[in-house]
Amino acid sequence: MNTTPVWSVDARTGARTAEVAVEASTGDVDRAVRAAHAARPALADRTLRAALLRAAADRLEARGEELVTAADRETALGAVRLTGELARTTYQLRAFAAVVDEGAFLDVVIDHADPGAQPAPRPDLRRWKTPLGVVAVFAASNFPLAFSVPGGDTASALAAGCPVVVKAHPDHPETSGIAASALREAAESVGLPADVLVLVHGRQAGVDLVQHPLVSAAGFTGSIPGGRALFDLAAARPVPIPFHGELGSLNPVVVTEGAAAERAEEIGAGLAGSFTLGMGQFCTKPGLVLVPQGPDGDRLEKALAAGAGDAPAGALLDGRMRAGFLAGFAERAALPDVGTPVAAGEAGEAGYAVKPGYLSVPAARLVQDSHRALLEECFGPVTVIARYRGPEEVEAVLGRLHGNLTATLHAEPGEQGATELLARLTPLAGRVLFGGWPTGVAVAPAMQHGGPYPATTSTGTSVGGTAIERWLRPVVLQNVPEALLPPELHDANPLRVPRRLDGHLETPR
Amino acid sequence: MNTTPVWSVDARTGARTAEVAVEASTGDVDRAVRAAHAARPALADRTLRAALLRAAADRLEARGEELVTAADRETALGAVRLTGELARTTYQLRAFAAVVDEGAFLDVVIDHADPGAQPAPRPDLRRWKTPLGVVAVFAASNFPLAFSVPGGDTASALAAGCPVVVKAHPDHPETSGIAASALREAAESVGLPADVLVLVHGRQAGVDLVQHPLVSAAGFTGSIPGGRALFDLAAARPVPIPFHGELGSLNPVVVTEGAAAERAEEIGAGLAGSFTLGMGQFCTKPGLVLVPQGPDGDRLEKALAAGAGDAPAGALLDGRMRAGFLAGFAERAALPDVGTPVAAGEAGEAGYAVKPGYLSVPAARLVQDSHRALLEECFGPVTVIARYRGPEEVEAVLGRLHGNLTATLHAEPGEQGATELLARLTPLAGRVLFGGWPTGVAVAPAMQHGGPYPATTSTGTSVGGTAIERWLRPVVLQNVPEALLPPELHDANPLRVPRRLDGHLETPR
Repeated sequence: MNTTPVWSVDARTGARTAEVAVEASTGDVDRAVRAAHAARPALADRTLRAALLRAAADRLEARGEELVTAADRETALGAVRLTGELARTTYQLRAFAAVVDEGAFLDVVIDHADPGAQPAPRPDLRRWKTPLGVVAVFAASNFPLAFSVPGGDTASALAAGCPVVVKAHPDHPETSGIAASALREAAESVGLPADVLVLVHGRQAGVDLVQHPLVSAAGFTGSIPGGRALFDLAAARPVPIPFHGELGSLNPVVVTEGAAAERAEEIGAGLAGSFTLGMGQFCTKPGLVLVPQGPDGDRLEKALAAGAGDAPAGALLDGRMRAGFLAGFAERAALPDVGTPVAAGEAGEAGYAVKPGYLSVPAARLVQDSHRALLEECFGPVTVIARYRGPEEVEAVLGRLHGNLTATLHAEPGEQGATELLARLTPLAGRVLFGGWPTGVAVAPAMQHGGPYPATTSTGTSVGGTAIERWLRPVVLQNVPEALLPPELHDANPLRVPRRLDGHLETPR
Repeated sequence: MNTTPVWSVDARTGARTAEVAVEASTGDVDRAVRAAHAARPALADRTLRAALLRAAADRLEARGEELVTAADRETALGAVRLTGELARTTYQLRAFAAVVDEGAFLDVVIDHADPGAQPAPRPDLRRWKTPLGVVAVFAASNFPLAFSVPGGDTASALAAGCPVVVKAHPDHPETSGIAASALREAAESVGLPADVLVLVHGRQAGVDLVQHPLVSAAGFTGSIPGGRALFDLAAARPVPIPFHGELGSLNPVVVTEGAAAERAEEIGAGLAGSFTLGMGQFCTKPGLVLVPQGPDGDRLEKALAAGAGDAPAGALLDGRMRAGFLAGFAERAALPDVGTPVAAGEAGEAGYAVKPGYLSVPAARLVQDSHRALLEECFGPVTVIARYRGPEEVEAVLGRLHGNLTATLHAEPGEQGATELLARLTPLAGRVLFGGWPTGVAVAPAMQHGGPYPATTSTGTSVGGTAIERWLRPVVLQNVPEALLPPELHDANPLRVPRRLDGHLETPR
């Protein structure tokens, strides 16, 4: 029997505050998955699913103070940020309830039988999407609510009709426990089994989870090594399963000559705010910024240096991240031709505090293998300014980038080459911004939070209404009598779901 | 330099008729992929893509006699079937042209900026789907047209805007060459580069193709071992790619007591026709049929035996398949309690001819590991009748099945337990039929030709309008000025694409 304790740790002091759980054994994971699996039939009712999501939002709000207090102690992200994150989380749950109610995600397509159809007679075909089964959710370190137990993966999976087993992140086990209990209470309050969501702790639990035969899909937010290891396990199963992992992203930014000339100070200050936001612990942190050489770029860097220099020190999420950040900064700073106009470093005496910094390097260096590290994500409050001499150097750097969640272009409207640059950035990312900064991911129907590998291991999104698509599988029913069909597939469309009928799109609302 | 010749073989005689190509070397594959990759920008124009698909259909029809003659010689499937398959193929190409024209597949979602949005201000977000890049298509043995060079994977990939490199199936290299040249001519006739489709031959070419860094996705139809090996390579790449493989399917059928009582002869005769159609070489061939014990089931078997006994001998696609079929039948027939009311076997003296047969076994045997082979696909004209004593035995057998393309229920309308059986079959398959037979896959918007593993390695379909979704990736543009947006994302919607605008579905046509 595994009794390895799971400790809650105060991120500001590094001190253990309480033993809040034990790590799940392989047997525990098996029981968790079987319990969730048994809850599948109950989730088939869309009305109940929508009610569950709304009740979950209500319960989380009711326990908001408790959640924010625990999350702040465990992550040091601050009560303001975490209160906002809770609002985002409950908004997201309710948004998915609306998605469930509308039913467009079912992708209903009906073709009536046509004995005279060419090139062959056609049977009656009625297609819709069905839940995949139990979904394993791996919580993220940096969003203890919005990308963890009650986050987007969980909300979208429940919306799809899939029970969830969440593997808690070790940085916030107490927060995870509170959130899980709120969600389980919500389930029972609407007449669903609590086991539509089950929480497990421990690294081996995650490995067991992704390999369990009754787990049908997985959602993950975390590091490239951890995510790739789990992706590989998912793909190597006797029955492979979809693994929707968000692993890592550099989030490149290109500042044109025109933009630097017009808005150097604004861009420099904005960048300082973006890369230090949440102590640089966003997956959308801009990690590489291409800035022109010359006086306009110098002005930009001056504003950036001022902003970054003024940015307060703060705690990172855990000791491993702090060590990784400090080592990553030092490794990059030691490379030839890399300057540290504002040096990151240790701060304070206890906990995981660091102070932000940035690096500056001629863009030409970035095409050299020796400087490869500068094109890889360094988690925490650091960014890299690459000073370029012309479009060829920009192209040379972009040509060496992997996939990203975001890519940003700062250009002046009408500036020559802007269209081409935008087109050049599109294959590199899932979200392409014109101006502004990538930190801050709106929860909206059109959001795409997912990009080419390693940003994401699939073409899915983990934010926005279409995140539900990851947990569904189409099934077509052929020549099934209406009495045996679900109402969503009846001709009369009693539930008024959007559908494609004999080729034509219908939006009944 | 690789000069291994590729021979066209007459399937009726087994004789080599002509050396029609050479196997592609690793360098050849690299050149093929790079040529296709260079054709990507040209395919960005949706109007040209639709024109390409229609021109391809026209060219294939113009060369129809040549294609059918070559395909019949190489596969022995017969001119009638192949003429029908050509019609299906050209219909499919034109259907995808209509999908491209309509633009619903772009999944356009627009959220206007809302500075007052809760829980956070919202930027202008415009999401659509973009082509993934070069798609590798692995042609199927059993459909030299509809699932090969000009087949559904190619048509849907081109429709999505992805150039295609097809790995020809060794059973029909000459047919593949003719079809590829027709498609390349079609491309040039509409002003596109011929290299939107490139053909390669050879087993190693397939291995090289799925590992090429510029290949972004793959479509495959074939065997479980071959498909799984390629799936594993795709997943193990430094940058993994989606691998949409259709590998194998048992296609279970359940005949209830009521259906057997009412329609024993009709069901028996229908089954004989379905499992011998195309010499049993359909991925949707019913390979396991649960039939009640007792006199009604006996009548069903009698009709089946009559039909199967009358079914003509014919050539399989190649010598490997013939050997596998004969060995597979003999292995299963040798198991305890397995009867061979109609024994399959060799037929004729030349070529790959066999005669159809079927096996009969008590359903209780199928829960024993010794009889595992009876629950695995045996390609060719054979099916397994499992005689059951009650619902518990049906459930026990269904509980041992892997995923399938199809599952079929023969029940009487209103028969007790029919609803539950239909629900029981749904998790097992992508298409669930009430009555009829699974052979024959309608090309229709609602079709789902893809089911749980090993039927398919993804949740996609390889037939029907939604097959296009496999080759696309969503991208959202944030705060991009209209002058830099594609017309599909303009507020005024000049191209009249269906979309979701500020949450509301719009169908402008």
